[in-house]
Amino acid sequence: MESDKKGVEAHDEMLFIVIHQAYELWFKQVLYELDSITDLLSKPEINDNDQTLQVVVHRSRRIIEILRLLVDQINVMETMSSLDFLDFRDLLRPASGFQSIQWKELEAKLGLNYENRHGKQYYVSQLRPEDVDHVKGVEKKTNLLDLLNVWLERMPYFEDPNAWPEGANVKPQDHPFWAEYRKKYTSGLLDIEQANIDLFDKTLFGKDEDDKRRLSAKACRSALFIYLYKGYPLLHLPYELMVSMLEIDELMATWRTRHMNMVFRMIGARVGTGNSSGRGYLKAALDKHYIFNELAGLNGLLMPRRDLPVLPTELEKALGFRG
Amino acid sequence: MESDKKGVEAHDEMLFIVIHQAYELWFKQVLYELDSITDLLSKPEINDNDQTLQVVVHRSRRIIEILRLLVDQINVMETMSSLDFLDFRDLLRPASGFQSIQWKELEAKLGLNYENRHGKQYYVSQLRPEDVDHVKGVEKKTNLLDLLNVWLERMPYFEDPNAWPEGANVKPQDHPFWAEYRKKYTSGLLDIEQANIDLFDKTLFGKDEDDKRRLSAKACRSALFIYLYKGYPLLHLPYELMVSMLEIDELMATWRTRHMNMVFRMIGARVGTGNSSGRGYLKAALDKHYIFNELAGLNGLLMPRRDLPVLPTELEKALGFRG
Amino acid sequence: MESDKKGVEAHDEMLFIVIHQAYELWFKQVLYELDSITDLLSKPEINDNDQTLQVVVHRSRRIIEILRLLVDQINVMETMSSLDFLDFRDLLRPASGFQSIQWKELEAKLGLNYENRHGKQYYVSQLRPEDVDHVKGVEKKTNLLDLLNVWLERMPYFEDPNAWPEGANVKPQDHPFWAEYRKKYTSGLLDIEQANIDLFDKTLFGKDEDDKRRLSAKACRSALFIYLYKGYPLLHLPYELMVSMLEIDELMATWRTRHMNMVFRMIGARVGTGNSSGRGYLKAALDKHYIFNELAGLNGLLMPRRDLPVLPTELEKALGFRG
Amino acid sequence: MESDKKGVEAHDEMLFIVIHQAYELWFKQVLYELDSITDLLSKPEINDNDQTLQVVVHRSRRIIEILRLLVDQINVMETMSSLDFLDFRDLLRPASGFQSIQWKELEAKLGLNYENRHGKQYYVSQLRPEDVDHVKGVEKKTNLLDLLNVWLERMPYFEDPNAWPEGANVKPQDHPFWAEYRKKYTSGLLDIEQANIDLFDKTLFGKDEDDKRRLSAKACRSALFIYLYKGYPLLHLPYELMVSMLEIDELMATWRTRHMNMVFRMIGARVGTGNSSGRGYLKAALDKHYIFNELAGLNGLLMPRRDLPVLPTELEKALGFRG
Repeated sequence: MESDKKGVEAHDEMLFIVIHQAYELWFKQVLYELDSITDLLSKPEINDNDQTLQVVVHRSRRIIEILRLLVDQINVMETMSSLDFLDFRDLLRPASGFQSIQWKELEAKLGLNYENRHGKQYYVSQLRPEDVDHVKGVEKKTNLLDLLNVWLERMPYFEDPNAWPEGANVKPQDHPFWAEYRKKYTSGLLDIEQANIDLFDKTLFGKDEDDKRRLSAKACRSALFIYLYKGYPLLHLPYELMVSMLEIDELMATWRTRHMNMVFRMIGARVGTGNSSGRGYLKAALDKHYIFNELAGLNGLLMPRRDLPVLPTELEKALGFRG
Repeated sequence: MESDKKGVEAHDEMLFIVIHQAYELWFKQVLYELDSITDLLSKPEINDNDQTLQVVVHRSRRIIEILRLLVDQINVMETMSSLDFLDFRDLLRPASGFQSIQWKELEAKLGLNYENRHGKQYYVSQLRPEDVDHVKGVEKKTNLLDLLNVWLERMPYFEDPNAWPEGANVKPQDHPFWAEYRKKYTSGLLDIEQANIDLFDKTLFGKDEDDKRRLSAKACRSALFIYLYKGYPLLHLPYELMVSMLEIDELMATWRTRHMNMVFRMIGARVGTGNSSGRGYLKAALDKHYIFNELAGLNGLLMPRRDLPVLPTELEKALGFRG
Repeated sequence: MESDKKGVEAHDEMLFIVIHQAYELWFKQVLYELDSITDLLSKPEINDNDQTLQVVVHRSRRIIEILRLLVDQINVMETMSSLDFLDFRDLLRPASGFQSIQWKELEAKLGLNYENRHGKQYYVSQLRPEDVDHVKGVEKKTNLLDLLNVWLERMPYFEDPNAWPEGANVKPQDHPFWAEYRKKYTSGLLDIEQANIDLFDKTLFGKDEDDKRRLSAKACRSALFIYLYKGYPLLHLPYELMVSMLEIDELMATWRTRHMNMVFRMIGARVGTGNSSGRGYLKAALDKHYIFNELAGLNGLLMPRRDLPVLPTELEKALGFRG
Repeated sequence: MESDKKGVEAHDEMLFIVIHQAYELWFKQVLYELDSITDLLSKPEINDNDQTLQVVVHRSRRIIEILRLLVDQINVMETMSSLDFLDFRDLLRPASGFQSIQWKELEAKLGLNYENRHGKQYYVSQLRPEDVDHVKGVEKKTNLLDLLNVWLERMPYFEDPNAWPEGANVKPQDHPFWAEYRKKYTSGLLDIEQANIDLFDKTLFGKDEDDKRRLSAKACRSALFIYLYKGYPLLHLPYELMVSMLEIDELMATWRTRHMNMVFRMIGARVGTGNSSGRGYLKAALDKHYIFNELAGLNGLLMPRRDLPVLPTELEKALGFRG
């Protein structure tokens, strides 16, 4: 410990070290699981009859359990008072607070890229150059969000000419399913909710170049379909996978919130480098670093189960067990 | 259940009802404990030798345990999918989501007042007039934050003429303790941290009229002193009390974050009344509704224990047991 | 509150009341979910292509989340000290501690019956006669454990004459699958593990009349098969269902442990009615009231995945999607 | 990983390794805190006016938070199915399950000694000889339970000749406080509770040689006094310390319960070495390894606050602040 080297009495430095080791240990495990998920989803085609999706969902849930633990770990950190921290804080300079490269790697592998990071310059300035390079290298590789987009785009639900004889070669908004769905959706909106029609069209039929969305309109149509018809056996695991992503996003947001508040309690309103406050930076990152919010946002385009279009028999069969 | 009345199949309405009843039940208990705390702290003087502060801290910790439970309760709520919610959502109109009057009452009794509430108009528009009146009525009564301020201002540490023969009648910044403390504090700042001197002066010696701070400079001096010298027996419980307030604030922030994310997952990016999104409103409230942040902010004005001014023997004695 | 009626000061009676109300509220929800599960599983046949099992597993997981909350709720209870409890304990007589009829109803609906209850006489003596009758009435109805047994017995895996031309009409131990499995299993045992052969034969081929087991040998064969081949799509949800039952059992055991320890901390070694101690009774019930332990016990009969018999193609097909 | 070395596919071995590393990391921290507590309490006298007890209680609470985390860590372990475990279980032989020397060291340092360990022979047979020696070495040193006994015996409450002019030189049961207390206590017992008088006399006045109790009668009198009069400032921290010990005991029991159930789910009813089942051993250890149960048991000897003997003014003063 630094405090031992310097002959300074600082009992709590040990906790500080151990808790960070525990975080790094668990981040290693999370990355191990995430890498295996990415590998599995990178296959050009996923065979519904092998275990791929089962394994992907199972490992996603394990990541969720680990993240729950990491949120609770803050309770242990909070047994260190501000004054206890001051006993050894100066010995840690210039390293500041919590700068885990594995955490940033996790964000990058899930799909956060440099452009979307808050305070790009500041972010870079706090890390060692080789670490910045490492994370940027990771950002260039396949991430889970992009893989999800590809996987969703590949879904064949609307292209079977037996199920949809009129749907094969028309624009998405003219496809019999989406034409009916849009009609029912819009008729269910109250006057004050009319603005959602725009949201609907942009999300499901919008041109991808238009905006900075990470999920294409085609992928969004598949995802919405999965939300709606998750009751069919073949859609059960895809649904569970999407929900797991939302939980991972939420848990990371909860972690960031608790971390931000812990830091504020620890160092207070103290102004740091460049007149920035630690809290302000953390808050902005918290607001901006959601990765799967487009997936969550689709829930605004659902309609009640009882109003759902009935699927063609051919499609229903394709979504079920051999029986 | 509404769904039974209307003959609609909506299995999950029961969960929705039960979880809200559970929240209200626990809010009732939290308010019961908070009222008892407020009563105890409202006494014109608190006798250190009776149990008042012990009881206050104990009940604050109970509130903390209950709030932890209420945060976890969101896990149960999240077992309800968006589609399950849509089965009965329309039956609930015009009531929207989570509008607990007891929660707002809790905020008000802790110290949040109408002026500091986010989106005052919108906030009012979502509630029944009698409920708005009720909460406004509560806001007019004594709240915990104001009581803390009074209680802190009453602390006699710097006024004992035996301990501080030169300190009795000077301006705070000339008091021997604070003069020494300020000198040491400023000399411990790095170049890039010089802006903290301003923060120091404003917080500890600032004119109260200047800003919207809720804690007076005098109260802040007492609070900082308690943080610094919590090792003395007499300051132990006051310290625990302040820390409990910070934990309550943090848990409420964690609850708001998780609630916001749950709502977003439930209704997505759907636009609601007045083109406002539910998420935007909740996020702004989350950022703004910290109640004890001035207390947390003081942690930026600490200095390492080993540099602390030594207290006069007379004061040390007054802070200890009869022995 | 009783303390108000009697003019006794007992601040914590409110907590005692509220926490019990919270338990009863959540028990109501758990029973509601459990009843719906029982209804779904009571159907003479479960169609794999409708949502039955999805819904059953989903609601089982909800019960799990609620039970997790109920375990954590003990943290709140434990903020009441023994002395705080004594302020009003005598006012509660003759009611003793925690005697929730809904909890006993839950146990009965899961599958615990009177014969297996610890301390039958004592148990009955603590309840009102009408409550005993109520629980006994519940015990006579279908419970989840028995439904699981029926559902497992109905599994058709080993009876398809196309898949198993030699297996249709032989005794289970001569069925090609089980003959091969038994051979591999026994050859994998170390010398000191030979006693497991007996366990194997008794569990999987044993006569049901022989013992007090609740799952028949036939049901155990299906359950073991599901554990082993859960990777096939059709077995995924049955596996999840069985695992959910184990988690429910574990959570109830965790609750009982924590409750027992809480009671011991509250009333200490005090001897109660009939010289019995509260702790002794609770401990014995804890040891005895596992409901799905036969399902958990089957895990001792697994073999490593890499040694598993390969399934006939016909059966593999039947366990998959139409594709 | 062993599976890599042997060329066996076993994805989950990593989790198994990481989770055990995380446990060892946290055990290291718990032992670090516990050692510091033991050091502080080993002082021949504890000055109420320095921070000793504050620090001891604070670090005990940190241990509690860490143990809470370790209980929750089992949730992560339980994402590993029995079949996943079998992929690599044989590679671990002869090491079995969870045999953490640091955990046993923790038990020993808290106060569990070899004589009280369940299944002494079996316990020893599962460990490496040098580890057995290490733990036995630890058992010979001062443990927390014995320190508590010494510390409690040293309490001077009943020996002040000013406060108790008639109490100084009589047998404990004739001391004015205990004579009055015993009289009130026994008169508060119902007919069916008369057996508690025996418990009372044995615990508070019993000869130490008589039984295997770890706390002497003298220490028990002090502990009971602290429970009863915790409202006095000087008794607040001693009370908090005792309660922390009870929570540590409870959390360790909860951990053992959850661990036992996890093991049972993992390896089922499989019979192991010497025909013993893993579950049976774990259950017996769970029942036997409570360390502070004598402290918890004292709660059976309390009486309602309103009936408590009033303390002599001299004593009251000694228990308070200088004021």
